[in-house]
Amino acid sequence: MEKYIFGIDVGGTNIKIGVFNYDSVKNIKKFEVKTSKSKEISTILFDIKKFISEYVVENNINWNQVVGIGLGVPCPVKNGYVEKCANLSVNETNLIDELRRIFPGHITFAVGNDATLAALGENQSLAKPYDNAVLITLGTGVGGGIIVNGQLVEGSSGFGGEIGHIKVYDELVETCGCGSKGCLEQICGTAAIIKYAKKAIIGKKTILNLETLNVKRIFDAAKMGDEVGLETVNRVAKYLGIAASILAITVEPDVFIIGGGISKAGPFFTNLVQKYFRENARFSTGKIPFQIAITGNDAGMIGSALLVKHQMKGAYENQFLW
Amino acid sequence: MEKYIFGIDVGGTNIKIGVFNYDSVKNIKKFEVKTSKSKEISTILFDIKKFISEYVVENNINWNQVVGIGLGVPCPVKNGYVEKCANLSVNETNLIDELRRIFPGHITFAVGNDATLAALGENQSLAKPYDNAVLITLGTGVGGGIIVNGQLVEGSSGFGGEIGHIKVYDELVETCGCGSKGCLEQICGTAAIIKYAKKAIIGKKTILNLETLNVKRIFDAAKMGDEVGLETVNRVAKYLGIAASILAITVEPDVFIIGGGISKAGPFFTNLVQKYFRENARFSTGKIPFQIAITGNDAGMIGSALLVKHQMKGAYENQFLW
Repeated sequence: MEKYIFGIDVGGTNIKIGVFNYDSVKNIKKFEVKTSKSKEISTILFDIKKFISEYVVENNINWNQVVGIGLGVPCPVKNGYVEKCANLSVNETNLIDELRRIFPGHITFAVGNDATLAALGENQSLAKPYDNAVLITLGTGVGGGIIVNGQLVEGSSGFGGEIGHIKVYDELVETCGCGSKGCLEQICGTAAIIKYAKKAIIGKKTILNLETLNVKRIFDAAKMGDEVGLETVNRVAKYLGIAASILAITVEPDVFIIGGGISKAGPFFTNLVQKYFRENARFSTGKIPFQIAITGNDAGMIGSALLVKHQMKGAYENQFLW
Repeated sequence: MEKYIFGIDVGGTNIKIGVFNYDSVKNIKKFEVKTSKSKEISTILFDIKKFISEYVVENNINWNQVVGIGLGVPCPVKNGYVEKCANLSVNETNLIDELRRIFPGHITFAVGNDATLAALGENQSLAKPYDNAVLITLGTGVGGGIIVNGQLVEGSSGFGGEIGHIKVYDELVETCGCGSKGCLEQICGTAAIIKYAKKAIIGKKTILNLETLNVKRIFDAAKMGDEVGLETVNRVAKYLGIAASILAITVEPDVFIIGGGISKAGPFFTNLVQKYFRENARFSTGKIPFQIAITGNDAGMIGSALLVKHQMKGAYENQFLW
């Protein structure tokens, strides 16, 4: 009798639901449903319950075959607890308790931050997963996750791995979404990149123009040797390299994995980041390799299924211990 | 029959050797012997072996009662392996293998970086040890150690927790001992503090004078409201606060523990560091408390004994697992 884990990644727009084989944690099927416009966690969990219940019935699966449900949310999470969240309507709630309330009692639940779970998912999807890995995702925001000694770094209250808010710049006068200044995200987030290029464009010879400017065009221009493109992309790569050099002498990962939309710029970009990383790396940490993320948008979903498996392994081991 | 662990902290000048009760990891006795001037690891290990052998004989201890030996060294260490070390003469050597070669076969050995082990020792010495802790030691160098999920962060090759080399400053033109620029140690190490004060003194009204300048006098002057003292100490506190704010959104410890000679400046100083930390802290991480280290110079010795205990617990648990 096959056993299943459901791995779920709740985003602001869509909820990704993956059906995984329990033994191999191999993804069998995946679906997307819309995130409730209210962003209310109770509604979101209700929608997830409804989807899984229907899937179970339609596929003649017995609830006993559903051994685990993993949930990734775009919030700081500590042992399933969310104090508050900018992206969903949820406050001072233990999401594991909420899942227990609506699903059958035998199921094992695991909840984590989406980006941290993505780090777990990406790392585990590599040919040979590492004990220590850092994922940096580059998109509208700059996020990421840290794995140390094979475990997620949630930190004291769920702010572990908030790489986008490493202070890398002393002179930024504008305030970041986090309320502070000088954050990596204020240089490497897509809005910041476009804003910088808009200023850099003035009075320079460039194939870019203000009307059609977007991040892809900036990176494409850089690849073609365009001055403004190169200046903009070099700045992004420099501060990413500095942030990585800091991570290298604090958690010293075996690998940096670069994900998110901007990672589509490929080796042209990661090589540039690695150049600045090496310039700033301390001691012999400059040898840490950079890889481009391979699982794309599925990393969080995969990671949430893996977290369930990790927790079940732990529980299973504890049966022998106590 | 009482069982013992020896916890050893090898420094550049002295070797601290502690005798610990195995069950409680309580320190029973402690000794200091001189570090061999050659700094040759083989000589150092020979001296340690000689000391322990004599202690065992003099105290009518059977070798079977010696269950573990832990060793802290001022080098990057990964699973007992030291690739190279600025402070001792040791290259590409697994120190656990070296200990196995000279001590009886039943003993469990553990080796780690001295500052990382000090973090373990300090944390465990608190009334209630934390799962996640960062120790920052302020002396000639700025060192430290990171504990995540109750485990040491060694990193990929032993450079985990090298807090003194976090890049906090873009404008430093001088090169740090690590070969890079802008390191925390270049602002908060004792030499850097004195150097800064020497410049700040010129043309200002101050109770400090160039001939008698030292770190204690600078901090004492600051406590009395002296302009140069305050300017110097504020600069140290500011960059420590910034480095802590970076650690707070990457590993997010439950506590920052401040150790080393400068920690003797007491709450006057840690309150100042905490002020700058809070100014720079992202999200709600500004609430992380700061504590002054309590075990003083014994932290590394205690930590090395604890590491043995941790490893033995792991081995014991594994007996049930496999």
